[in-house]
Amino acid sequence: MDERIREHAALLVDWSARIEAGDDVVVSVSEGSHDLAVAVAAELGERGANLLAVSDSDEIERAYLRAHDGAFAESPAHELALYERADAVLRLGRGRNTAAKADVDPAQRQAYRTSRRAIREARMDTDWVSTVHPTRSLAQQAGMSYEAYQEFVYDAVLRDWESLAEEMAQLKTLLDEGSEVRIETGGEELTLSIENRTAVNSAASVAYDSHNLPSGEVFTAPYAAEGSITFDVPMTIDGRRVRDARLVFEDGEVVDFSAATGEAALRGVLETDPGARRLGELGIGMNRGIDRPTDNILFDEKMGDTIHLAVGRAYDACLPAGVTGNESAVHTDMITDVSSDSRLLVDGDVVQRNGTFRWEDGFAET
Amino acid sequence: MDERIREHAALLVDWSARIEAGDDVVVSVSEGSHDLAVAVAAELGERGANLLAVSDSDEIERAYLRAHDGAFAESPAHELALYERADAVLRLGRGRNTAAKADVDPAQRQAYRTSRRAIREARMDTDWVSTVHPTRSLAQQAGMSYEAYQEFVYDAVLRDWESLAEEMAQLKTLLDEGSEVRIETGGEELTLSIENRTAVNSAASVAYDSHNLPSGEVFTAPYAAEGSITFDVPMTIDGRRVRDARLVFEDGEVVDFSAATGEAALRGVLETDPGARRLGELGIGMNRGIDRPTDNILFDEKMGDTIHLAVGRAYDACLPAGVTGNESAVHTDMITDVSSDSRLLVDGDVVQRNGTFRWEDGFAET
Repeated sequence: MDERIREHAALLVDWSARIEAGDDVVVSVSEGSHDLAVAVAAELGERGANLLAVSDSDEIERAYLRAHDGAFAESPAHELALYERADAVLRLGRGRNTAAKADVDPAQRQAYRTSRRAIREARMDTDWVSTVHPTRSLAQQAGMSYEAYQEFVYDAVLRDWESLAEEMAQLKTLLDEGSEVRIETGGEELTLSIENRTAVNSAASVAYDSHNLPSGEVFTAPYAAEGSITFDVPMTIDGRRVRDARLVFEDGEVVDFSAATGEAALRGVLETDPGARRLGELGIGMNRGIDRPTDNILFDEKMGDTIHLAVGRAYDACLPAGVTGNESAVHTDMITDVSSDSRLLVDGDVVQRNGTFRWEDGFAET
Repeated sequence: MDERIREHAALLVDWSARIEAGDDVVVSVSEGSHDLAVAVAAELGERGANLLAVSDSDEIERAYLRAHDGAFAESPAHELALYERADAVLRLGRGRNTAAKADVDPAQRQAYRTSRRAIREARMDTDWVSTVHPTRSLAQQAGMSYEAYQEFVYDAVLRDWESLAEEMAQLKTLLDEGSEVRIETGGEELTLSIENRTAVNSAASVAYDSHNLPSGEVFTAPYAAEGSITFDVPMTIDGRRVRDARLVFEDGEVVDFSAATGEAALRGVLETDPGARRLGELGIGMNRGIDRPTDNILFDEKMGDTIHLAVGRAYDACLPAGVTGNESAVHTDMITDVSSDSRLLVDGDVVQRNGTFRWEDGFAET
C-alpha cells in the first residue's frame, strides 16, 4: 500500500477525528475510496475502536431515487439509531463518476434530503470528518493526470496541521477583535462588518470545530457588505461553469451582478430566496499545499493566496448566542485570487498583501 | 444492465425477503456485488422500502482484525441498534478474492465472531436473506470462465421457486411422516432415525424459513446413524481439498473414517468436540439448475441428484419443542452423488432412485 494512504488514514483518525479506544465509529466508504478504507480500518483496529463500514455509492442512490415515488419516510429508524449511537463518522469520498446522479430529478433529491433531516442532525452531533481519497474521476474533473492528482491531494492533506493551526489562530484573533474587513483586489473594494462575530480556525480537526480534511481556512460570518468584488477563480454552480462572477453590494445586499461565463447559473443562485442575495461567509484560504483550483470546492476554497465569500446561509459557529445569522437554502462559495494587486485590511490595518500575511517574511503594507 | 441482474434483484426482494413499503432494509454490499446492489436499490425504491447500504469488504475486515489487540468490545451499540431496528437484511456476496482473509489468525477471527453474538442474533431476527452475485473470484474458485459462471449462477437462482416449493413439499411430507431413512449408494448403506423430526422445505424465501438464494433442498436433523457412506463430491474443509471422505457410524457416532485426499482436515473436524462425531443434518439437493460442484457449499449442497450430511450442530427448526439437537462448534457438510447406483428409502419405501423421485417420470424402484 502507498505509504501516503497510511499517513492520510492515521491523520484522519488521530488529528481530525480524535478517535479513542472503545469509540463506536461509522466509516462511510465510497466506490472510489476502498484503499483508504482499508488503511482507516487498520488505524481503528490498532486503537481498539469499533468499526462499522457503510456504503456510499452514487449509483446505488441514483437507482433508489429514480425508482421511488418521492414520498420518503422521515429518517428511517434503523439508520437513525445507528447515527444516534455513533461516536464518530468518517466519510471517505469519492466515487468513480462525479456526474453519476446527473439524471436524478433535483426535486426528488431535495425531497430525499429533506426527509433525512434527523439522520443528518444525528450525524452532525458526532465527531464527524469528511475527507477525499484521490480517484481517477476527481483527477478528470481537475483536468489532471491520476499521478499528478494524487500528489496534489496528498500535498493538501499531509500537512503539519498543528503548526498551521497556530498560524491560523493569529488570523482568528485579528478577526475576532476586529469590526470591519476591507478586501481590495483587482481595483475593486468591498467592505464587510464582522463586529460581534467569531471566526473559526478550520484546522481539519473536531478539536477546532473543523470537519473537513484537508481544511486550512479561517472563516467568519460577515454582514453589511458595501462595494464590489470579482471572483476570478473558476467554479461550477449547478453543473455549469462560472467565470469572473462580479457582485455589487449595497447595504449588505447584492444590487448588481454579472459573469463572463455562466451568468444564468449565478442568477439562479441569487434568486433562490432573499438570503441568497446576502453574504453568509467570508473565508481566507491558508492551505499552501493547495496550489491550483481543481473544480472541487472543498479544496479550492482552502487554497493559499485566495479569499472566498459565500452568498446564502451563515454558520452558527460564527454567531453570538441568540443571534440568527443569514438564512437561505443555498450556501454558494465564490473565490478570488489575492496573490497580486490585493490587500486584506481589518479595521484599517493591512493583514495580508498579495497573499503574504503580516507575520510572514516579505510582507509589506503597500 | 444485464437483465438477469434485475430479475435476480426482483426475486430477492419479492420472493425471498417479502419486502413491503416502509420496511427498514439493510443491504450488505460486498466488493464484488455493486451491480446487484444497484438493481436491488431500484427494487427497494419502487416498493417504497427504506434503504441503508452497509459495506462488507474482506480486505477492510482483514486490516481491522490484524491491527486489533483481540479484546473486542461486545456487539458495539451503534451496529447493534441498526440491526435491532431493521426489518430485513439482504446480504449480497461476494468479494474479489476468496482468500482475502487467509492471513488472519483463526483465533482472532473466532474472538471477533464471538464478541458479535448479539449483533448476529439481532440480524437473524430480521427477514434476512443471503445471496451471491457472480464474481470473477467465484468463477476462478469454480474453475470456470466468467461468462460460463454467470450462466451457472443465474440457472441456479432464476428458477420457478413456487413450483419447486410445491415439489419439495412432497418430500417434506414424506420425511415428516417417516421414522427411518436409508441411503444406499456406491454399494454402502447408511440408516438414520428421523422419528419426531420436522423437515424444512428450503425454498429460498423467509416465508419458508429459508434464508439463502439460491436454495432448493429439503433438510432435517437425523440421529442414531448406523452404517457407512462415501462422499464423492469434492469439498474444501479449512482451506484444504478433501476427496472421497468415508464415514462409518455405529450407534449414531463416527467410529471410523478415511479420505482419499485431505484426511487430516477431516480428522480435524471430527475431533473438534464430541458433537462433531454425530450428524446434525440430512439434506436432499433438489435444485436442478445447479448441475456441477463449484467449490461453494451454498451451491454444491443444493445440487440436484445429491444428498448431503453434516457432522456437528443441528438446526432448531428441525427439532420438536423442548428437544435439544446435536450440539457442536462445527457444522460441516459433505455431499454424495446419487445419480447412479443409489436409492433413498423412507420407512422401507423407495423415495428416490438414481436421482429420480417417485413422483417424477422415469422412476423405477429397482
